[in-house]
Amino acid sequence: MMRPMEPDQPELTSTANPRVKSVVRLRDRRERERTGRTLIDGARELRRAIDAGVTIDEVFVCASLLRGADARAALDGLDEAGIPLRGTNETVFAKLAFGERAEGLVAIARVPSTALADLALPAEPLVVVLEGVEKPGNLGAVLRSADGAGADALVAASPRTDLFNPNVIRASAGTVFGVPLAAAPRDEVFAWLVEHGIRIVAARVDATTAYTDVDLRGPLAIALGSEADGLTDAWRDATVEAVRLPMLGVADSLNVSVTAAVLLYEARRQRGSVEPAV
Amino acid sequence: MMRPMEPDQPELTSTANPRVKSVVRLRDRRERERTGRTLIDGARELRRAIDAGVTIDEVFVCASLLRGADARAALDGLDEAGIPLRGTNETVFAKLAFGERAEGLVAIARVPSTALADLALPAEPLVVVLEGVEKPGNLGAVLRSADGAGADALVAASPRTDLFNPNVIRASAGTVFGVPLAAAPRDEVFAWLVEHGIRIVAARVDATTAYTDVDLRGPLAIALGSEADGLTDAWRDATVEAVRLPMLGVADSLNVSVTAAVLLYEARRQRGSVEPAV
Repeated sequence: MMRPMEPDQPELTSTANPRVKSVVRLRDRRERERTGRTLIDGARELRRAIDAGVTIDEVFVCASLLRGADARAALDGLDEAGIPLRGTNETVFAKLAFGERAEGLVAIARVPSTALADLALPAEPLVVVLEGVEKPGNLGAVLRSADGAGADALVAASPRTDLFNPNVIRASAGTVFGVPLAAAPRDEVFAWLVEHGIRIVAARVDATTAYTDVDLRGPLAIALGSEADGLTDAWRDATVEAVRLPMLGVADSLNVSVTAAVLLYEARRQRGSVEPAV
Repeated sequence: MMRPMEPDQPELTSTANPRVKSVVRLRDRRERERTGRTLIDGARELRRAIDAGVTIDEVFVCASLLRGADARAALDGLDEAGIPLRGTNETVFAKLAFGERAEGLVAIARVPSTALADLALPAEPLVVVLEGVEKPGNLGAVLRSADGAGADALVAASPRTDLFNPNVIRASAGTVFGVPLAAAPRDEVFAWLVEHGIRIVAARVDATTAYTDVDLRGPLAIALGSEADGLTDAWRDATVEAVRLPMLGVADSLNVSVTAAVLLYEARRQRGSVEPAV
């Protein structure tokens, strides 16, 4: 399955190698921000980055760990794009990779732009706004929901994690590369929505209106808060409609990625476009 | 916040104490099955167990770690029920507790019955069937969705984890005690559904019918497979309707707890009972 390493690219066999150390440093947010680079762990994640046209600098490969169709597709894509591969042994790879599901591939990639001004939206966009998200796992899970329901963008308002954190990439199963993404302070996000004529529906556990009783058609942003704190009062503006998901059991809230999916799929249903466009 | 320990219950200060060791052994599935006991970590989880009438044998408390309203409510509930508290120091508690969010409370509880025959259902039940679930985190997350949407039961078909695994309890945020729960081999579950006149709708990524195009009213089971494998062919019976959630992005499936929530909340919407019964 593995194409042969080029003869001028000897296998990395020492964890003291400076290339290895520069990869490990990218696990640190400051280093990612300084270099504009991040790490992609896993075959499916890497394949989705390639499909999305993300710029990959180089890829570290442990041939003995490669498995399955995603790895094959990722290697084919890398080959086609002429991206350099660096072979490693298992000891070096264990140092480069994060967690147990590394699948023999770690890539250094350029972080795509997350400027609000760079977002291109369709005429009647369906946008997710996620405020104050802190846990990469939560952001990744919301991205999976947004991708599945075909959200036109996810805008992070005053996030407390970097959007292309390797753990976001991993938790999103690579969908972070498929959903148009931006980040800005909450006031800028709010102003941007108003400027673009996008109505805001905010999910709040204390809202009195059920989400099924509001019109979710037309240009729409669904605003969600962090799991710990919910939305701040910045989203209590008179122009914002607050809705809740009825909680019929013992708990008072759902996982934020679950809330996002229920609201987004209900919006799709109301728009009469649950079926994928052909 | 902490009530004083009884004088005849000296604080546990040694990790070599046999009581400490018997708690630690309950992290092992075989020991849970041998004793019919499990461990509950966390204040919210313990409060929900008490509210649900779960039998608690005893609770280990680290006073210096207790925080917040849930811990207070849990202690009040324990006090009212006369359940013995054992004080521990932080060293012992670190040995008893799992992970970083232990919140100063670990309880030994009796595992409730999970016999299908013990499930009491309303006239037109909305049931979740989850086949082959292996990861406690996935089962816990599906339980949160089932609880939120007011499912009348969750039936695990041929599960590969024990339902009251401490990590299920934790991932479910204690909703495992709020959702009527049963486990049985898949054939028995299927026969039980047929016997009770419960229609089966199966979520499959390869189904041709969108979930919004089927009637989700009346006695209904929503069948979901494990994330790795999906549903087995046991659920391809002619009487089972297969539905899919349209996937409008780059990924081909959602997290199983997200799929569960979208289907359950759509069922609630169709039933005209998204609002909680008063």
